[in-house]
Amino acid sequence: MKLHRREFAALVLGAAAGLSDAGAASADADPLPSWNDGPAKEAILKFVHSTTDSSSPDFVAPEERIAEFDQDGTLWVEHPLYTQVVYCLDHVPTLVRERPALRQKEPFRTVLSGNREAIARLPLGQIFEIVLLTQSGMTVEDYRADVKQWLATARHPRWDRPYTELVYQPMLELLVLLRANGFTNFIATGGSGSFVREYSDKVYGIPPERVAGTGQVDVFRHVKDGKPVLIYEPKLALNNMEAGKIENFWLAYGQRPCLAFGNSSSDDQQMLEYVKAGSGLRLSAAVLHDDPEREYAYGPAQGLPDTKVGTFSQAMYDMAVKQGWIIVSMKNDWKRVFPFET
Amino acid sequence: MKLHRREFAALVLGAAAGLSDAGAASADADPLPSWNDGPAKEAILKFVHSTTDSSSPDFVAPEERIAEFDQDGTLWVEHPLYTQVVYCLDHVPTLVRERPALRQKEPFRTVLSGNREAIARLPLGQIFEIVLLTQSGMTVEDYRADVKQWLATARHPRWDRPYTELVYQPMLELLVLLRANGFTNFIATGGSGSFVREYSDKVYGIPPERVAGTGQVDVFRHVKDGKPVLIYEPKLALNNMEAGKIENFWLAYGQRPCLAFGNSSSDDQQMLEYVKAGSGLRLSAAVLHDDPEREYAYGPAQGLPDTKVGTFSQAMYDMAVKQGWIIVSMKNDWKRVFPFET
Repeated sequence: MKLHRREFAALVLGAAAGLSDAGAASADADPLPSWNDGPAKEAILKFVHSTTDSSSPDFVAPEERIAEFDQDGTLWVEHPLYTQVVYCLDHVPTLVRERPALRQKEPFRTVLSGNREAIARLPLGQIFEIVLLTQSGMTVEDYRADVKQWLATARHPRWDRPYTELVYQPMLELLVLLRANGFTNFIATGGSGSFVREYSDKVYGIPPERVAGTGQVDVFRHVKDGKPVLIYEPKLALNNMEAGKIENFWLAYGQRPCLAFGNSSSDDQQMLEYVKAGSGLRLSAAVLHDDPEREYAYGPAQGLPDTKVGTFSQAMYDMAVKQGWIIVSMKNDWKRVFPFET
Repeated sequence: MKLHRREFAALVLGAAAGLSDAGAASADADPLPSWNDGPAKEAILKFVHSTTDSSSPDFVAPEERIAEFDQDGTLWVEHPLYTQVVYCLDHVPTLVRERPALRQKEPFRTVLSGNREAIARLPLGQIFEIVLLTQSGMTVEDYRADVKQWLATARHPRWDRPYTELVYQPMLELLVLLRANGFTNFIATGGSGSFVREYSDKVYGIPPERVAGTGQVDVFRHVKDGKPVLIYEPKLALNNMEAGKIENFWLAYGQRPCLAFGNSSSDDQQMLEYVKAGSGLRLSAAVLHDDPEREYAYGPAQGLPDTKVGTFSQAMYDMAVKQGWIIVSMKNDWKRVFPFET
């Protein structure tokens, strides 16, 4: 179904009415200029129109316009390793200085060897152990400061740019379009919420309180001068993988999104399934990484290589087709991938 | 320290600038008309002025203006029983119909007896059991609908009004004042977040995603027609009592409030202590229920009766004085308690 010109203009005017989103000021402007015309773009624009036009049978009240976004592989690059894992690997030397007994133990020994291939082969359970240990023992505020500092200096090996520049321009445009049309955007990440909160507002316009993630226990303690602090422990409080992502979203916010974007079978499938199954018009979309030239190609949906990070299984692909999710092909649907491309 | 007239006018103009808070439109209007002049009101106005005046050494950036409010006994009445406990007690008959074996067991037997004094004497552990069991087994959306329905019909025994009318007018004015001055208000309740989220936006102007509370596990499951649902289980995921309130606030939002209001030693003390200990100007305040005529008197701070619900211990009172929290006396600081008073 084609979007009529009048409907399209209404969407853009909606965007123009968003006070802080001055980018889309003219009724002739395309609110999603980095998306190629095609079924994905059309379905998104149609969805936004139908849920916000008060004369539409699919109208959704503003307070129910909840949009939920996975981060890694959906809003920014997740290859060759999740950014937060890179952060944690970078902190292994400090960790073993403080706890020398770990130096001879796996997986720390492999990490310290610097052997990239061996590091890439570490099983997920060991990666988790590294994450828990490198992100504990400090106050929550010292952790914040350290993440901020790291993000300011670390660079992605392929593009030699800060990780926070490796966000997808088409998705940034979508976030603006939704916000301008009365949607409230949330991030639901399999990574640590506390990591993503350091840049979510600046990069995505999503404030820290709307970032749900995996979370480590933090404990209230009085330190030597009697001052109360919160200290991270190497223990999970919330696990946002698999069904945990949508279970914890409800736990934290008590709302069922009407729109969700993800890309991974291990981390987004249940969220996309749950959102799509709600009553009324719902949009679930999965980003397919099928563009090795401009980004990466991995799957194994549609025969793409299985690289372990951010798997999009064929089974999830089949579910997506059957349930009518939108499949976003990076190669075909995105005119431009990154903001820094000209 | 007195607030100068110019500073006062700036605060009110700030309030008038808040788009949805049209109540305070004139520079001459008092932004807290239900507060008596006195040290509590003065300290609050001074705090808001100092943290929002960009020329002040205590200026706080808008994104860090996080205000955290306990609910029971701080924003609304918590006597003779917490409202959510009343909701759960009302659901015991349904529970025992579904699980008849519970009928002869404590604490359900006592609840079914209707003996109010015996019910009031039930230990906290048994109340918790009632809460967990009456709030589980249904989908999260059925629970929402049921809470909504109950709130529309249940009435407080003393005032014969819906519970949502038993909110404190002075606190509603404070929420408006803070919002108009760029603060983001949050609720952190020892009760179930899912219960409070049903009315938080309507009653307090605080949307569901900014309500943190005790939370029961909800589990993703496929039901008979293959439809995915989330079902509550009789098991705690997050416990917001004692230090849990501030630990879970960080877990969910990753922010340290610069202002907090509470009233209970069992549920707010660590939050108030942690907030007050932050660097920069901070405000922690505790509401003292010392007005048996207009509301209730309980403590046991300052020799008030110890009623178990919402205790304000003498130890917390002493801590408050030592650390410079604001003590809000309902009797002396509040000109008017409820919105329905004329």
